[in-house]
Amino acid sequence: MGLRSKQQFLHDLIDDREVYYRGERVTSVTDHADLGIAVQHAAIDFELAEDPATRELAVYKEGDEEYSAYYRVPRSASDLRLRSKLIEAGTAKGATLVILIKEIGTDAIFAMMRVLSRGKSAEGLERLHAFYTECREKDLALAVAQTDVKGDRSKRPSEQSDPDMYVRVVSTRADGIVVRGAKVHTSCTPYVDRILVLPSRSMLAGDVAYSVAFAVSPATPGVKMYASDFLHGGHPFTEPISSKHKMIETLTVFDDVFVPWDQVFFHDRPDLAGAVALTFVEYHRFTAVSYKLPLLDALIGSAIAIAKANGIDRASHVRDKLTWLGGYVETVRGLIELAAQRGEIESGIAYPHVFTTNLAKWTFARDFHRAIEVVQDIAGGLLVTGPSGADWDSAEIRPVLEKYFAGAWPANKRLALMNLISELTSRLYGGYQAVLAIHAEGSVEAEKMAMFRSYNAKPALEYALQLAGVADIDPAA
Amino acid sequence: MGLRSKQQFLHDLIDDREVYYRGERVTSVTDHADLGIAVQHAAIDFELAEDPATRELAVYKEGDEEYSAYYRVPRSASDLRLRSKLIEAGTAKGATLVILIKEIGTDAIFAMMRVLSRGKSAEGLERLHAFYTECREKDLALAVAQTDVKGDRSKRPSEQSDPDMYVRVVSTRADGIVVRGAKVHTSCTPYVDRILVLPSRSMLAGDVAYSVAFAVSPATPGVKMYASDFLHGGHPFTEPISSKHKMIETLTVFDDVFVPWDQVFFHDRPDLAGAVALTFVEYHRFTAVSYKLPLLDALIGSAIAIAKANGIDRASHVRDKLTWLGGYVETVRGLIELAAQRGEIESGIAYPHVFTTNLAKWTFARDFHRAIEVVQDIAGGLLVTGPSGADWDSAEIRPVLEKYFAGAWPANKRLALMNLISELTSRLYGGYQAVLAIHAEGSVEAEKMAMFRSYNAKPALEYALQLAGVADIDPAA
Amino acid sequence: MGLRSKQQFLHDLIDDREVYYRGERVTSVTDHADLGIAVQHAAIDFELAEDPATRELAVYKEGDEEYSAYYRVPRSASDLRLRSKLIEAGTAKGATLVILIKEIGTDAIFAMMRVLSRGKSAEGLERLHAFYTECREKDLALAVAQTDVKGDRSKRPSEQSDPDMYVRVVSTRADGIVVRGAKVHTSCTPYVDRILVLPSRSMLAGDVAYSVAFAVSPATPGVKMYASDFLHGGHPFTEPISSKHKMIETLTVFDDVFVPWDQVFFHDRPDLAGAVALTFVEYHRFTAVSYKLPLLDALIGSAIAIAKANGIDRASHVRDKLTWLGGYVETVRGLIELAAQRGEIESGIAYPHVFTTNLAKWTFARDFHRAIEVVQDIAGGLLVTGPSGADWDSAEIRPVLEKYFAGAWPANKRLALMNLISELTSRLYGGYQAVLAIHAEGSVEAEKMAMFRSYNAKPALEYALQLAGVADIDPAA
Amino acid sequence: MGLRSKQQFLHDLIDDREVYYRGERVTSVTDHADLGIAVQHAAIDFELAEDPATRELAVYKEGDEEYSAYYRVPRSASDLRLRSKLIEAGTAKGATLVILIKEIGTDAIFAMMRVLSRGKSAEGLERLHAFYTECREKDLALAVAQTDVKGDRSKRPSEQSDPDMYVRVVSTRADGIVVRGAKVHTSCTPYVDRILVLPSRSMLAGDVAYSVAFAVSPATPGVKMYASDFLHGGHPFTEPISSKHKMIETLTVFDDVFVPWDQVFFHDRPDLAGAVALTFVEYHRFTAVSYKLPLLDALIGSAIAIAKANGIDRASHVRDKLTWLGGYVETVRGLIELAAQRGEIESGIAYPHVFTTNLAKWTFARDFHRAIEVVQDIAGGLLVTGPSGADWDSAEIRPVLEKYFAGAWPANKRLALMNLISELTSRLYGGYQAVLAIHAEGSVEAEKMAMFRSYNAKPALEYALQLAGVADIDPAA
Repeated sequence: MGLRSKQQFLHDLIDDREVYYRGERVTSVTDHADLGIAVQHAAIDFELAEDPATRELAVYKEGDEEYSAYYRVPRSASDLRLRSKLIEAGTAKGATLVILIKEIGTDAIFAMMRVLSRGKSAEGLERLHAFYTECREKDLALAVAQTDVKGDRSKRPSEQSDPDMYVRVVSTRADGIVVRGAKVHTSCTPYVDRILVLPSRSMLAGDVAYSVAFAVSPATPGVKMYASDFLHGGHPFTEPISSKHKMIETLTVFDDVFVPWDQVFFHDRPDLAGAVALTFVEYHRFTAVSYKLPLLDALIGSAIAIAKANGIDRASHVRDKLTWLGGYVETVRGLIELAAQRGEIESGIAYPHVFTTNLAKWTFARDFHRAIEVVQDIAGGLLVTGPSGADWDSAEIRPVLEKYFAGAWPANKRLALMNLISELTSRLYGGYQAVLAIHAEGSVEAEKMAMFRSYNAKPALEYALQLAGVADIDPAA
Repeated sequence: MGLRSKQQFLHDLIDDREVYYRGERVTSVTDHADLGIAVQHAAIDFELAEDPATRELAVYKEGDEEYSAYYRVPRSASDLRLRSKLIEAGTAKGATLVILIKEIGTDAIFAMMRVLSRGKSAEGLERLHAFYTECREKDLALAVAQTDVKGDRSKRPSEQSDPDMYVRVVSTRADGIVVRGAKVHTSCTPYVDRILVLPSRSMLAGDVAYSVAFAVSPATPGVKMYASDFLHGGHPFTEPISSKHKMIETLTVFDDVFVPWDQVFFHDRPDLAGAVALTFVEYHRFTAVSYKLPLLDALIGSAIAIAKANGIDRASHVRDKLTWLGGYVETVRGLIELAAQRGEIESGIAYPHVFTTNLAKWTFARDFHRAIEVVQDIAGGLLVTGPSGADWDSAEIRPVLEKYFAGAWPANKRLALMNLISELTSRLYGGYQAVLAIHAEGSVEAEKMAMFRSYNAKPALEYALQLAGVADIDPAA
Repeated sequence: MGLRSKQQFLHDLIDDREVYYRGERVTSVTDHADLGIAVQHAAIDFELAEDPATRELAVYKEGDEEYSAYYRVPRSASDLRLRSKLIEAGTAKGATLVILIKEIGTDAIFAMMRVLSRGKSAEGLERLHAFYTECREKDLALAVAQTDVKGDRSKRPSEQSDPDMYVRVVSTRADGIVVRGAKVHTSCTPYVDRILVLPSRSMLAGDVAYSVAFAVSPATPGVKMYASDFLHGGHPFTEPISSKHKMIETLTVFDDVFVPWDQVFFHDRPDLAGAVALTFVEYHRFTAVSYKLPLLDALIGSAIAIAKANGIDRASHVRDKLTWLGGYVETVRGLIELAAQRGEIESGIAYPHVFTTNLAKWTFARDFHRAIEVVQDIAGGLLVTGPSGADWDSAEIRPVLEKYFAGAWPANKRLALMNLISELTSRLYGGYQAVLAIHAEGSVEAEKMAMFRSYNAKPALEYALQLAGVADIDPAA
Repeated sequence: MGLRSKQQFLHDLIDDREVYYRGERVTSVTDHADLGIAVQHAAIDFELAEDPATRELAVYKEGDEEYSAYYRVPRSASDLRLRSKLIEAGTAKGATLVILIKEIGTDAIFAMMRVLSRGKSAEGLERLHAFYTECREKDLALAVAQTDVKGDRSKRPSEQSDPDMYVRVVSTRADGIVVRGAKVHTSCTPYVDRILVLPSRSMLAGDVAYSVAFAVSPATPGVKMYASDFLHGGHPFTEPISSKHKMIETLTVFDDVFVPWDQVFFHDRPDLAGAVALTFVEYHRFTAVSYKLPLLDALIGSAIAIAKANGIDRASHVRDKLTWLGGYVETVRGLIELAAQRGEIESGIAYPHVFTTNLAKWTFARDFHRAIEVVQDIAGGLLVTGPSGADWDSAEIRPVLEKYFAGAWPANKRLALMNLISELTSRLYGGYQAVLAIHAEGSVEAEKMAMFRSYNAKPALEYALQLAGVADIDPAA
């Protein structure tokens, strides 16, 4: 108890969960040609706890109990730093793709712990603690379904022509609630043990039925998962990452799903919805920047390597671009390090510094496409005109490619790097990461709003008023 | 004579050309599942001349002769403008993908006409005119093979450890020359009638064997084409463009290919190599910006549409982004219009204004990735988490998608736009266009060098010296 | 009649106008140490008409009548182009500082002509024509007072706690109106013959008293001008421009000023206020970009010269920066050229293409500070640590400066360029131009709004809908 | 001993130092109308040690000895942090202008200590320690003269046509050396106790005479200081900072100056020149970013205040700009905090993390002009068209200004803020800071080179090679 093996994880996924992929119901996610790759990727979580190189980071020992360090409630800035390092290490092992079967779930748990600890719902807090303890002790994998499908974005939940555009409580029973609606962009849903469902925004009094947070098993009747096929397929030559590493997002439909009371953390509470939504995102952006670091390292590392392979590493414009890239990557890394260090405590739970976390995320997001551009620039047009995996596998063709695609490094090295860069920047995986850079964990605009709200303007404002000799004005008036 | 039908074009492609794709020799490019799509796309060229809507633009009447307007030698700024309009119209019909089976070939011919008209090679000019006349009268499709594989980029052609890293003359015979080497990024090679081969850079005295320009038929013995598979596959739901429109690039190998004298425009002429390489690119960048316009229109058009479909078109940040996008697109359009208007004449042949053309291309290239980012930002994360074509085709699943993916517009419209944007920005086609934005028709750095060289600094420099009261200095001293 | 001499212009400025400068009433603007420089600068307008080099551009011959070409009503794209050239030539003669005593006034007249020609006020149109004819025949100098002081920007005119925050009609008499309020940023007011007063924004029904446009002489009782001293002083060594060229802005107060009916173009017309305000700005932004060109040429020209003078013109980063600068300058120039070419006609009056004009202005404005940065970067720290004019004038000190400030060019040339650049970028004149870049002729935000409103989205939107296969939707619905 | 009073500092400046200003020899720097302001500003250094609010930061107690904390040799990351805080506090007291009479001098001393501790010059190290001890014990003020006048930048010191373009040893005597040449941009020279002279670049064997470092008193015969007048004058209304705070830079000429051996730290040592030049700059950039923070706070603070004063603080574009500004300011602050934390030790002396320090400086420098632009944008055109100090002082005019320049805040507050912003961004002080942002402490290009050299590429490069499956290549080969 406390740590599951990879085998147990895979075994526990076999149940009646209703997953659809490419038009068909999936009978077994672990055995499925495409989804199975995603499952194997998720299982890296359990390898981390077994691998001696990462075990210390991945396993937490509290008294006699050992459990997954993802479940360690952060109590200090140092705990936040260790959590960040763990997430980075897991993603590095995942070849730049985050694992995400515990990171996001614990983000949600810690966020709800903080909000519910403010004395607004003793019962909810108790249920949450029980849920947390179960997850930790059983070493469960969790998905978080937050983003509602939202319908017309210019309207509030209760104003939509179809009332199911946000997940809502359709009826209350003695033993629990019945929910309906759908969430999008839910990562890893087909291969986790529990789905945590949170509101995606602040709610007004009129949106009371939409103010609900709960957990369900994916095998619960009425839960239906429609999986995206964005990253399907791939040859190891041209898709060195995504042929082995995938993450699956679903449209997660709640078709009048019954949730017993002990899995309901709150309902009919517009006063809690926004706080939980925002607090979750504060943790989750810290997670996000932590897991972006291997991707950024892969970009700059492959740019340096291909510059050498092409023989252009001494060109002044190449050095200039690599310098910019290094500045970009290290600013993101430095800021997330600071966000942990500046972490603060509420109800005994540490949280990353809100402004600095959002600053880190915004810094990452606003220049990611430029980073892509710079790496493509250094690599060359071969990113999209290079040979196929079948060409490379052909004994007749390969010698031609080896001769003509040699640069300052041999063709096999150069093409391997070119294909890595092509995946990171111009194939489906690159497109996936680019869209995630802008939209995952809240949009760039949301990050900017969070920065605006959390910026501590007082010292600078007072200093300016003093310099202008008008310190006697009350800026809030 | 002068205009071929689409059927003739397809028929004429059937010969012994040696094309390899995905590890195998292709028996018929027109019938091939993937390559056949590219052939059909290329055939749009011939539809332009048949379609009443485009016929006036696509067919030029000179006396009694009617021929493809691509072959019209530009004599004035107005001719350049018409040529630009034709290229734009062809690409719009190609759903943002350029046709390119005559555009690039005539760019090369016009460039060589200008350079050879400087009195440096009467014989070469004569052969070129004969070649041009044949192409025009037979309405031939042309590829241009310019970019050498280049090996170690820090070394000149004659310094490479393998002398075949640039295409070169290996021997001279009484009836012609024998060439060896390979070109990359050659577009459309498998489905044209002639391949024009040009040097890719300026040459020094030591690089004499590499200073050669000639034409061959793709069916010539020793010519081997290894096709990239970058844009293979695709479902019409998720790949509305590339499931119907493709362009194929090849590694084009010259394995001791014999070229008779009448197809050799020059050889052993380092003095001509650089001039032809540069002059070709001047024309070709003008072509390039002309054919980028439909892509840019598709980006801004789809961004406006998805903003409405999502219900966010009144958000101030969305308006701000659309305004930037409109400014970007229209600056590119305006500058290429100016480049034609400012066109100048040499030896009776008009050429687009060099600085303005490069300015237009650079303006396009340096903000293309930001444009992608902006469109993705407005569209949303559904770009990479949306349903597959098979889901949409499923009678069971589609109603769920229709319910939950509705926005301010119905789900079918919204998803169609989302998939269009996904193709343009985050799927393979988007990655292809992004890399082309930086590398096709010369890199961004090459464009900047061309701008630096062609900028007319005199008026500004003299004005500044006069303002500073130091007009008596000779700035060149 | 039709053309005044410079002497007449200066003579006609002698009257009772109430001008304040540095805390004191100015007795004669022409004789004043600081304001006199601005008057001499304004007089360049009349020199243009006398100078053989510019006479053709500056004087228009219509039948037997000769008049200042600024007063030529544009009837075609070609007229707009000539107007742009004239404004550029005047500013070039003004050493990068616009003359502005006819440019802005005719912008206002042409704008009102267009709006009033829409059949909304026959009487107003008649008065305007009479006013225009008088100005043209007497060759008058005009200021335009448009920007109200505005008070609290979050409130409309009629919502302000002090009703005088926008110029308003306080009473109507049989012979005219009485106006009160103040305008800011009024250029050249102290040394013109007439002040044209326009509304600065659109008005609602409640703002009726603020919906007024009229003309007054600066000597009218109650008109008081409080001149800014931003550009005072300067030594010819360190301020080669502003020691000889100035423009004065005033706070222009209307202290219950009576305006006879024949000088009132409209009043109590909220329906006209916004149209006139916007249409004026459309003309004025075209004027603005035209007069920015000499400033941009001075920046790039001095950057090229100082790079040579410093001996760094072959450094790759310097070339890169100069290339960017050239691209910036020539994009602005190209777009304003296009804005004229694309000019359209209303009621027989040509107006520059609205989107392209705003695009040009926005392009200028959004990168101006970066241009400043680039030029400072190339010039060096000497911009702010160099010797004073008195040092240079000292026979003892100058030899030391000549020895130690020599670069690749002699010290006198290098320091002259350094001082020119310092004035353009880091002294008061540079600060003045930088603020003007953002705020003059409407803010950058106003330009973006104009771009958003005038962008013709239809072709791009239709193309995108067609590519997505959803051309059947009505995007306006 | 150990701490001087402000009075002592002022008293000790009275000697025969040869200072020239505005064409004339200055008889007393402390009594001079313009230079006296700079002296008073410098004296803030001594007020810091007296003021109870800053005394703890400004005075270091080592055993029984108390001395200025600037002289504390940093031994740990924590010491670096305290040093940064001290520099920030001093500059805040200096109203955004750094004090710089000990900061830069100790940067130079610590840098030479590190380099000379590498065992290359026991004698030099001993002299340096003696010099350091004297400075600390006498609480001396120091200038650092590093930047040579450099002549033609494309040539090395020994290649210049005039051999005095870099400071050099012209003869060696038994008791010392004689030096000739000139340094520029030397801050505070006229009012310090010692001038430290360092090489400005790496030297080759041929540049041996230029490889010299020493100290002199400003009163030494042959030392001549030609002061810039960039920040002269100013009214407290329109120049709230520079009317009270100035810094003076000089051209510092060494006209065959004799330096005794005990003040010579090394000479004829090309092997030390580059190391000292670079190491000094590493410390000095850390100092620089520390002292930029009050300036950045003043910019964002005044932008927030003026947005409120204008009544536009709720406009979405204003919030967007303030958010960007906050992100910029806090990234700089965060990175310099990290640079201290990541500090490393050499020979017992702590130094700030080189890459992070340069990253902080580059981040500051590359967006400073944009920050200026944003603040000007929010403030408005009144920055350059506002009333003069004399207007404000006039009892007749002030009521008019009070009425018409009121915004959401009263006119006196609003104009005070406007003038503060005008000084920071568009008057001479703003121009001075803008040029310093690019050029002080080495140019932006120099910072980029330092980043490129100090970036630890190994982890990212190895990760990329591993992802590409080519970890067996040696990237250095």
